[in-house]
Amino acid sequence: MPITANDPKRKTWLDTPENTDFPIQNIPFGVFLTRDDIITIGTRIGDYAIDLGALHQLGYFEGIPLTDDIFLQDSLNDFISDGKKTWRLVRNRIAEIFDTKNEKLKNNQDHRNIVLFTLDEIEMQLPVQVGDYTDFYSSKEHATNVGTMFRDPENALLPNWLHIPVGYHGRSSSIIPSGIPVHRPQGQTLPAGAKEPVFGPSKLVDFELEMAFITTDANPLGEPIPIDEAEEYIFGLVLFNDWSARDIQKWEYVPLGPFLAKNFASSVSPWIVTLDALEPFRTESPKPEKELLPYLQFSGKKSFDIKLEVSLKPENGEETTVTRSNFKYMYWNMSQQLAHHTINGCPVNSGDMMGSGTISGPTPDSYGSMLELSWRGEKPVKLKDGSERKFIEDNDTVIMRGYCESQDRRIGFGEVSTKLLPVFQPKKNNSR
Amino acid sequence: MPITANDPKRKTWLDTPENTDFPIQNIPFGVFLTRDDIITIGTRIGDYAIDLGALHQLGYFEGIPLTDDIFLQDSLNDFISDGKKTWRLVRNRIAEIFDTKNEKLKNNQDHRNIVLFTLDEIEMQLPVQVGDYTDFYSSKEHATNVGTMFRDPENALLPNWLHIPVGYHGRSSSIIPSGIPVHRPQGQTLPAGAKEPVFGPSKLVDFELEMAFITTDANPLGEPIPIDEAEEYIFGLVLFNDWSARDIQKWEYVPLGPFLAKNFASSVSPWIVTLDALEPFRTESPKPEKELLPYLQFSGKKSFDIKLEVSLKPENGEETTVTRSNFKYMYWNMSQQLAHHTINGCPVNSGDMMGSGTISGPTPDSYGSMLELSWRGEKPVKLKDGSERKFIEDNDTVIMRGYCESQDRRIGFGEVSTKLLPVFQPKKNNSR
Repeated sequence: MPITANDPKRKTWLDTPENTDFPIQNIPFGVFLTRDDIITIGTRIGDYAIDLGALHQLGYFEGIPLTDDIFLQDSLNDFISDGKKTWRLVRNRIAEIFDTKNEKLKNNQDHRNIVLFTLDEIEMQLPVQVGDYTDFYSSKEHATNVGTMFRDPENALLPNWLHIPVGYHGRSSSIIPSGIPVHRPQGQTLPAGAKEPVFGPSKLVDFELEMAFITTDANPLGEPIPIDEAEEYIFGLVLFNDWSARDIQKWEYVPLGPFLAKNFASSVSPWIVTLDALEPFRTESPKPEKELLPYLQFSGKKSFDIKLEVSLKPENGEETTVTRSNFKYMYWNMSQQLAHHTINGCPVNSGDMMGSGTISGPTPDSYGSMLELSWRGEKPVKLKDGSERKFIEDNDTVIMRGYCESQDRRIGFGEVSTKLLPVFQPKKNNSR
Repeated sequence: MPITANDPKRKTWLDTPENTDFPIQNIPFGVFLTRDDIITIGTRIGDYAIDLGALHQLGYFEGIPLTDDIFLQDSLNDFISDGKKTWRLVRNRIAEIFDTKNEKLKNNQDHRNIVLFTLDEIEMQLPVQVGDYTDFYSSKEHATNVGTMFRDPENALLPNWLHIPVGYHGRSSSIIPSGIPVHRPQGQTLPAGAKEPVFGPSKLVDFELEMAFITTDANPLGEPIPIDEAEEYIFGLVLFNDWSARDIQKWEYVPLGPFLAKNFASSVSPWIVTLDALEPFRTESPKPEKELLPYLQFSGKKSFDIKLEVSLKPENGEETTVTRSNFKYMYWNMSQQLAHHTINGCPVNSGDMMGSGTISGPTPDSYGSMLELSWRGEKPVKLKDGSERKFIEDNDTVIMRGYCESQDRRIGFGEVSTKLLPVFQPKKNNSR
């Protein structure tokens, strides 16, 4: 089925800002609370949020096999379970409804009043109920930087790194949408030179610039997904800030990996941009430096050219862009990650989220974490207000943005913005 | 509220086998498909499964604040969300309904026909929808054995082990109930002496004898659970077989921990035995060998004396018990695990599962995995049929059982039984 929603010539009758992340060629999916406190699935064009639950009730999706309540849900999981054919039918139809040539909704003010919201009238929610969250470690530059800092510059990459897309399981319960603040975590750390650990607030809270893809139900227990089918099961992507506490991580992570250093929060951008919308931005993956085992070999363009940037905003201060990177730098692509994840028969479900790992580029101004940007704190990062940062300070806000751009279109992700609050203080006489 | 369901003198009017794991003092919770293909929440007394959905519709829970459909669900999550007070009211009521002195249901054959099932009429399901699954590593004997084999006998325990209940995130999607077979996983391994990895079936598939506890909604993002409140949020326990592929694990696990070596399957016993039912079996935890940070210090008996055993059954062969261990050997108890897991503000939800880690005892006949029992394969384990096992072979069934026993009662978990099938073979001309 053609992805007609991608037609670059299409224009919409909605007023949209120039250079918006959300032109009619994007049509992402999200979940929001409306002004009437109703939760619904929606899309976004320009600065309008569009209530798909209402559009469906009004008959605009006639002819597409959808259950009545498919959009009147608090997560996209069921819609994502419907599969790629349905996603395309719906996205193509939305493009038609808002096409300048289509006057049906355009000229129906009653319907427009029901389905269209301005952004200040809605509250974005987590777009999926995340069953399982996996985080990969797929940027060679990031793995090399970390290996250089903490192990051996001569052998920065561990022996398995060029053979497998290294990954580990993360915590679903602490994945939050943009806008929800996070408390600085407390925990155990081993101060330099000390023999016994101490307890207190993490002193080295960091962001990790990542993207995450969201899957549909892919395979029963025991059955691998072949690499050339993997993209069939990928619904779309979000920006992903994998918050990390470096000092907690250092003490806890041997031998079973990061745990409390990561699971206090991961923030995501609320609009899932579909793999279909990103189709025009396919690009070559980096050439493998070792011959890969057959189940990880692929042909064609499986990487995507998505520009990424991170800003820090001190309280009441101005934003400073601290890094610019690109999703295309990933050594391992999503198809390889999903083929690897399931080669042992591990089942993948609708709403599962797979993080890329920190996306660092080749140059120091493209590194994807403060750990790398400040090189363990040795080179503090200067902000516009004259202050410096080695890591994230209380009341700083971290904002990640991402977009694709070509001659004929811009497809963006909006942003994921998260404020770091001081350590949680239990209320006195708390009756809990 | 008193836990009257624990009264050791209570007898039931149901015929129950002597020495059953499920006397009227147990009253576990599970989910099953009935002979009419209806899914419901139930309990078990002796060899009867009892349909709590039907009992509720017939008015037997009158006076207890429960929604009409609380038991007509495919998971216990909502019931568990209702909290400990409600669990107790329901468990106490069930004890009363089946008490020899209570003739209401006993003498109502119509109702008995509706609510009582024999075990061969039902099919047990996974009892909860697992949001997040965490696996700890809390047996000192297991950590010491592994450290001795793979690192350094003189420094078998890593420096953090005596300070923190080391844990890591596992995969929820591959948690399966007893009775579902598992395919031998395939993947990458690095053969001894080789420089490049090879692909194929794991040669070192192992069980791990664990227990897992199931939580209720415990804390909002950012708020730790104090250790003395932790048990308020624990609903109950199941037997847990954390299947492991040792050769895959060895190659993949540095630096982020086990991934494909674990996430092909974890099997659980289907009946959740409540913490309340285990109350009479509290026992002291091992004395800490290092002074603990205050958030991990506790008073009172927080460990439980639960006898555990594992049998191997070759295809068409007889069972051989290969190990006998006890949940009380755990160095870190559940309260410590939950306090640690949330000290950074990580939220815990209803249905989350927390594995203990392999439960090895102090003697070689109490080790909790084939890796330890056969000491990396150096000491094969003899089976009754004369064959030997270093690890698990195709078509072997691994059966774990657990129970508590005292003068006045036996409270058991039944079993978790899982057959290991050969590697999955894709069908020719598979149209998927």
